[in-house]
Amino acid sequence: MASSLISRRFALSLQTNLWLSAPGCRYVSKAAPKTQLEYDYDGPSMKTSVPGPRSQALTKQLGEIQNNLPFKPEMDSVTLVRSTSSVTMRRAEGTTWWTWTTTACWMSTLRSRPSQLSTLVNRPALGILPPENFPDKLTESLLSVSPSGMTRVQTMACGSCSNENAYKAMFIWYRNKERGHNMPSDEDVSTCMINKAPGCPDLSILSFNGGFHGRTMGCLATTHSKAIHKLDVPSFDWPMAPFPRLQYPLEEFTRENAQEEARCLEETEDVIVKWRQKGNPVAGIVIEPIQAEGGDNHASPDFFKGLRNIARKHGCAFHVDEVQTGGGATGKYWAHEHWGMDDPADIVSFSKKLLTGGYYHKDELQADKPYRIFNTWMGDPSKNLLLAEVLNVIRRENLLEEVTRSGKALLNGLYDLQAQYPGILSRARGQGTFCAIDICDDATRNSILLKARDKGVLLGGCGDRSIRFRPALIFKEYHVHIFLNIFNDVLAEHK
Amino acid sequence: MASSLISRRFALSLQTNLWLSAPGCRYVSKAAPKTQLEYDYDGPSMKTSVPGPRSQALTKQLGEIQNNLPFKPEMDSVTLVRSTSSVTMRRAEGTTWWTWTTTACWMSTLRSRPSQLSTLVNRPALGILPPENFPDKLTESLLSVSPSGMTRVQTMACGSCSNENAYKAMFIWYRNKERGHNMPSDEDVSTCMINKAPGCPDLSILSFNGGFHGRTMGCLATTHSKAIHKLDVPSFDWPMAPFPRLQYPLEEFTRENAQEEARCLEETEDVIVKWRQKGNPVAGIVIEPIQAEGGDNHASPDFFKGLRNIARKHGCAFHVDEVQTGGGATGKYWAHEHWGMDDPADIVSFSKKLLTGGYYHKDELQADKPYRIFNTWMGDPSKNLLLAEVLNVIRRENLLEEVTRSGKALLNGLYDLQAQYPGILSRARGQGTFCAIDICDDATRNSILLKARDKGVLLGGCGDRSIRFRPALIFKEYHVHIFLNIFNDVLAEHK
Repeated sequence: MASSLISRRFALSLQTNLWLSAPGCRYVSKAAPKTQLEYDYDGPSMKTSVPGPRSQALTKQLGEIQNNLPFKPEMDSVTLVRSTSSVTMRRAEGTTWWTWTTTACWMSTLRSRPSQLSTLVNRPALGILPPENFPDKLTESLLSVSPSGMTRVQTMACGSCSNENAYKAMFIWYRNKERGHNMPSDEDVSTCMINKAPGCPDLSILSFNGGFHGRTMGCLATTHSKAIHKLDVPSFDWPMAPFPRLQYPLEEFTRENAQEEARCLEETEDVIVKWRQKGNPVAGIVIEPIQAEGGDNHASPDFFKGLRNIARKHGCAFHVDEVQTGGGATGKYWAHEHWGMDDPADIVSFSKKLLTGGYYHKDELQADKPYRIFNTWMGDPSKNLLLAEVLNVIRRENLLEEVTRSGKALLNGLYDLQAQYPGILSRARGQGTFCAIDICDDATRNSILLKARDKGVLLGGCGDRSIRFRPALIFKEYHVHIFLNIFNDVLAEHK
Repeated sequence: MASSLISRRFALSLQTNLWLSAPGCRYVSKAAPKTQLEYDYDGPSMKTSVPGPRSQALTKQLGEIQNNLPFKPEMDSVTLVRSTSSVTMRRAEGTTWWTWTTTACWMSTLRSRPSQLSTLVNRPALGILPPENFPDKLTESLLSVSPSGMTRVQTMACGSCSNENAYKAMFIWYRNKERGHNMPSDEDVSTCMINKAPGCPDLSILSFNGGFHGRTMGCLATTHSKAIHKLDVPSFDWPMAPFPRLQYPLEEFTRENAQEEARCLEETEDVIVKWRQKGNPVAGIVIEPIQAEGGDNHASPDFFKGLRNIARKHGCAFHVDEVQTGGGATGKYWAHEHWGMDDPADIVSFSKKLLTGGYYHKDELQADKPYRIFNTWMGDPSKNLLLAEVLNVIRRENLLEEVTRSGKALLNGLYDLQAQYPGILSRARGQGTFCAIDICDDATRNSILLKARDKGVLLGGCGDRSIRFRPALIFKEYHVHIFLNIFNDVLAEHK
């Protein structure tokens, strides 16, 4: 393995690539800096075959306790590794990994130890007994990165809970709007107790083909990415609209893509009308700024502006699900900032990189009575503490600028590789480091994922045949070039 | 205020009640020990009126960020207090509180500082990248208190997520049983993507009138305690059966209660047959061992045994929801242990006192493929760490025995007060310290809750007109007597 030959501290020249002595085609990134760089080598370093013996033993041990199937197919060797202070890697039996699937890179930037241990070891009922520093911590953390037009935030325990409660907030808002006031009738009250309309009304959330919004039952009714998530679980009769299927690079297919987006907007409006006519009106529209789980599908700012207008026109709340895209990977805290709108949404939900689940909302989406949007924990204040620290590091180290720079290098590198391996790669796309590329077929994709893993780079798939890149925010441009070299090695083996 | 006259360290005689110098009728608990006791006084101690100025300022501050309505009605003065090392109390502006609503007494016993800070400041994707010590921590914590017949546990972020995923596990199990194998048809796969049967089948979960199982959309369809939880949220056409409405004390109404339970079992079976006939068969039955949110409604071990048999007979999974009852408050780790059954359930869900959400399940309820029961975080390993420490303290200090002893003293005290104030109190009931009593009407209940709060005791309501008692596990018998005296003062003001 190339990287195992490398000492921990190493003077690196990307131009000569002396440091990578492995055989095979050597890719030299065009975006590489022209000057010599000196830094600690912190690329992957393999100490065992994959999975190593310790990982196998731990995987077996966990398998006796719970379902260990999800991490078996390609990740079992890193399922049980300890995180280190160097947050771009994980170690098992001495191996140094790069986790490039860090949509979940929660602690990607936390380097200092929070002093407030009491917050870490307590679990208050936030809905009724939040700790004294809770408003301050919300202000330092989530509120310091509020989306445009939103000053209110509700924390929740995970992404699914966030979306479930966001949907509830939209239903409550819609019904109060229908009533013209917030006093339910006796019939509302009595029928809701037995799950019947009008108390439990026939209302729907419109979602998009290929979208992913979580796996609890309300969320699942809006998830349409893969059958494995939905199979055998009862669902709601809620409408699904087409998400644009664009051609990449976007700037080369402006006209075609605009047509495709216009078609999708038109169909969305038709669906809203149809569902209203059949007595199941759309209370809210939920959409990801980039469909992640569904295959890293992008749409233009114009598409989202059009959709926002359709929501307004038909009286539907507009919910932007930033559970995957939020937190900086696109080069902005929120992917929807790229749309350049003052009033982008009524609700923005988040989780993952934000370390806590929750959603921002406009004032009118606040539930009108206690206990309507509620649960016992409503998040976890220790995570706000961690998030505040993460945001400090992001600001201090200008990580959003780093992401923009690294993302550009990554996407350019993917374009180059795509030109070099046209039989394998296509449709390179991305915003910031939130990038993806399509592989010719599913079998080749899986083989590439395994080979990259064996070289210490953990990549993930999305959609039918895409590979998604989700590096941590502290991934620098030079990491990109290390990666592109390794990826090139992997691809060369498939040529 | 009586208690404000008392110094922190005080030689207390419960018999003479010298320590309480307030005027008014003085209740002397019959269960009080006959010997003199010497200990630190750690009852409530009020420093300000309620709510105090600091609490008001913080409540206002939080109200500008999010919905602060839930804690307004009766608890706004304690919403923002810091927890202390003495876990039975909370302090705001110098006031010492007793929180007697600690169904949520998560850190009720944690006194030592966990050394593993890395677990506390990291947030791994447990489903794919659990930390190396995760199996060990599960073994030390949750698995060390597994319900009978269950060796598998799946952690989740909160109680609602736990039940949502437990329902999904039951649906998946039921459909595979219907199929006779676990290979979905092409029609299953294609229809589930658009929320239609047979992929998203017409299956139901049977729940009980008065039950509470959470507030996400799947859970809500099984919650029938209060309209405020359900109003305006679309739901499923799922069956509801009657929960026995027993007379207390249980031992005085054996015959009447047995009849009531037989009626409920018969009706449950009728509902199962009816829902099967209308094409929406019951895949699972969910029930609380004591209906908590719905009003602390008890049922006998015979009732639950009968229900378990009905579930078996009709091929339904049997899910015992111990989110409120689990964790020791009934004098056993799990309330269902009081039934004395070897095979009490197929699924047992938990949260709150267990510090992490999740559910235990029998082997056959394990999903057959990866990503069917899954989310990104799937709980939080730091909470297992805390739970392991809590369980150590419970064992070391024999807290379950303490709870049994304190619970007996509490219930006997409530019986006495009920005899003393027959116009106000009725239906005292409980198991361990998981006790409740009914108040003559809702207005009197609310007045009692407020007056108790002003004396530093935070009680909570449940059902239409009950007060529920949920002290921490370290509440000792002498705490009970301090409480009964204060409660007696409150009641005397309502006579």
